[in-house]
Amino acid sequence: MRQPSFLASTDAPTPAALVDSAAELLDAVRTEAPLVQCLTNHVVSGFTANVLLALGAAPAMVDIPDEAGPFASVASGVLINLGTLGGRQPEAMREAAAAAQAHGTPWVLDPVAVGALPVRTALAAALLDFRPATIRGNASEIAAVAGADAGGRGVDATVGVEAVSGSARELAARLDTVVAVSGPVDLITDGTALLRVANGHELLTRVTGAGCALGAVMAAFAAVTEDRLVAAAAASCVYGVAAEDAAGTASGPGSFAVALLDALAALTPATVAQRARLEVTR
Amino acid sequence: MRQPSFLASTDAPTPAALVDSAAELLDAVRTEAPLVQCLTNHVVSGFTANVLLALGAAPAMVDIPDEAGPFASVASGVLINLGTLGGRQPEAMREAAAAAQAHGTPWVLDPVAVGALPVRTALAAALLDFRPATIRGNASEIAAVAGADAGGRGVDATVGVEAVSGSARELAARLDTVVAVSGPVDLITDGTALLRVANGHELLTRVTGAGCALGAVMAAFAAVTEDRLVAAAAASCVYGVAAEDAAGTASGPGSFAVALLDALAALTPATVAQRARLEVTR
Amino acid sequence: MRQPSFLASTDAPTPAALVDSAAELLDAVRTEAPLVQCLTNHVVSGFTANVLLALGAAPAMVDIPDEAGPFASVASGVLINLGTLGGRQPEAMREAAAAAQAHGTPWVLDPVAVGALPVRTALAAALLDFRPATIRGNASEIAAVAGADAGGRGVDATVGVEAVSGSARELAARLDTVVAVSGPVDLITDGTALLRVANGHELLTRVTGAGCALGAVMAAFAAVTEDRLVAAAAASCVYGVAAEDAAGTASGPGSFAVALLDALAALTPATVAQRARLEVTR
Repeated sequence: MRQPSFLASTDAPTPAALVDSAAELLDAVRTEAPLVQCLTNHVVSGFTANVLLALGAAPAMVDIPDEAGPFASVASGVLINLGTLGGRQPEAMREAAAAAQAHGTPWVLDPVAVGALPVRTALAAALLDFRPATIRGNASEIAAVAGADAGGRGVDATVGVEAVSGSARELAARLDTVVAVSGPVDLITDGTALLRVANGHELLTRVTGAGCALGAVMAAFAAVTEDRLVAAAAASCVYGVAAEDAAGTASGPGSFAVALLDALAALTPATVAQRARLEVTR
Repeated sequence: MRQPSFLASTDAPTPAALVDSAAELLDAVRTEAPLVQCLTNHVVSGFTANVLLALGAAPAMVDIPDEAGPFASVASGVLINLGTLGGRQPEAMREAAAAAQAHGTPWVLDPVAVGALPVRTALAAALLDFRPATIRGNASEIAAVAGADAGGRGVDATVGVEAVSGSARELAARLDTVVAVSGPVDLITDGTALLRVANGHELLTRVTGAGCALGAVMAAFAAVTEDRLVAAAAASCVYGVAAEDAAGTASGPGSFAVALLDALAALTPATVAQRARLEVTR
Repeated sequence: MRQPSFLASTDAPTPAALVDSAAELLDAVRTEAPLVQCLTNHVVSGFTANVLLALGAAPAMVDIPDEAGPFASVASGVLINLGTLGGRQPEAMREAAAAAQAHGTPWVLDPVAVGALPVRTALAAALLDFRPATIRGNASEIAAVAGADAGGRGVDATVGVEAVSGSARELAARLDTVVAVSGPVDLITDGTALLRVANGHELLTRVTGAGCALGAVMAAFAAVTEDRLVAAAAASCVYGVAAEDAAGTASGPGSFAVALLDALAALTPATVAQRARLEVTR
């Protein structure tokens, strides 16, 4: 576990320090190859596993009852994504979240389409009791988890990222978690500091699971540092810079998804340090 | 909702009018970004969502009971594909089909391997009561749904498209639906007119889910026009022309699937108008 | 069904004879297009189907109770992969294995993460009663199935291939099956002969489902020859040579996965005969 140096002080992290941490943590993911358990939807499970492999992490899609709990107790990080809740996956998710909490495994909640649909909305509320390290979603989803009034249209965000910054901050403070709102500029908050990461590319919205896979990347980074804010910021920077590289070679959404995997595998910490665009406000 | 101009007359649509509609409706899909709910198999769900995103539609893979019904009542179009019926998906499909019928949401049935396998065959029969806007399958599947004697070999068609044209027409007339038979030349009928679309490429048969994704594309087009025959024809033309473009740059089935997504995103209405190969007989 | 010529003798197969068979059997797969039923995990089902299609086989992902059994009785080969056991898939797997055994359909068991996780470990033990033609896994998984003491870390092998050669041989002899251990060099044994296939590429470890898809390829080859050892060796050679071709054009794990499909489709028997690297010991 790395402790970013600025954590020794009581000052807010500076953008420069956060960017340095992002670069350093990418190296840590490559070195430690954290075992990231994913309980995710069947639409994106393959792409998510490939993103983790490209990054240098080790995916394990263990998502059935009686296995999900034991595995979460030994995994390095866990992703719980509510996209499709087939079979007994909800039961496995409760098991995994409980085991993760009990054993100190950081876990990320991705509340896909919460607010718009009843089964997942109830499940998300129940899972919050197990204290996710990070909650990642689009603005509509974060608003719904926060209890704010904002109706999503399924998996699309119908409200802007900045419109939910207050709700996100309040949610993070209330649950002692980090909230990451994905959009053209990602917003990340621990309830005090508010970070904005301006990396990424519009083509990410044309690939199914691009957001879901970012949740898995956040779980991978949360596995290599105890600082959840830094982990989420690092994941967002790394993923966003890789997306920019991929867009540079892509001819459309199909080749972009392929190139994103190549770019994640090729990305160097130095490039992250050079290209990450991160702002901090309090 | 667009009303193609020839609908004002009682004449059969001409090929030229249908091709113009296909081009126009591609533009409509891009502009309206219809929300297409897919209850589909786990093999192709990711590819299907990516095809819809590339096309300009908004996929939502909501396929569990208690969510599928409510969602189908607000979705722009619905696809129900019987490829793998895991967990409680059959129950969710009944729910979605019933809600779609009740709320006037057009829905497409893809009866994968119906006839060859018992669970899906019974389910397909039950779902027909909810009146699909379109039934899309290969010749063996359409023959089986029509009650004709033709044994499929799983997901492969063992009979030719032309051999089932009579069954397809009878089925369409009986159920007041549109039937689309996929093959080297796609056959589409509303029970009266019989259309043939000669676009496409043999590599489509080497990519899993290429046919399944076409069903989703038909749901997207059915969401932007009330004319089901025109919607199915437009989907077939657009998808087929994109496949031809993709084959032009592909080195094999892997790069073809990637290029198909790029081609769908890049395709212009003008290209569709220029390249669609469509015949009409009565 | 082909009978490799050396089977007429009591001598061990020579590397040259095995390589010739691999080339010949690739041609047989292309000609016969065996129907390969896959009961596999939702993470890799799409990629697995695409690998089979690229190879020239016909995938059918029939994995629900009441369909899996009847289908296994008519399929050319069956793959049972324990990666994710959602819904009633375990019941379908028992059904398929029983039907395959009863009807002489060769079936391949891929015991993903067996040993590390309880549900799949119990299921794998139960499935062995139905006598798989082939068991394919990494070293940790094969050690676990053999009852040897080796803890896996989920889906990763934590022990080397050579370390389990004794266990693999004993397991193959005890169950009258062929055991294939995937690694930098694949090890394949029928309990007597011990083959090593040195084809392949490190990028295979960076693509989710690369190993799982090899299991499906083994089922395809087992469908075109009665000699299980030859089938597994041919699958390993063909897949490994295609991986080498793919690596030659790839820029990273994303483009490698795409190129692997193209390479499988383009691979000629002559190239297999020329490039397969196979050793035999007793």
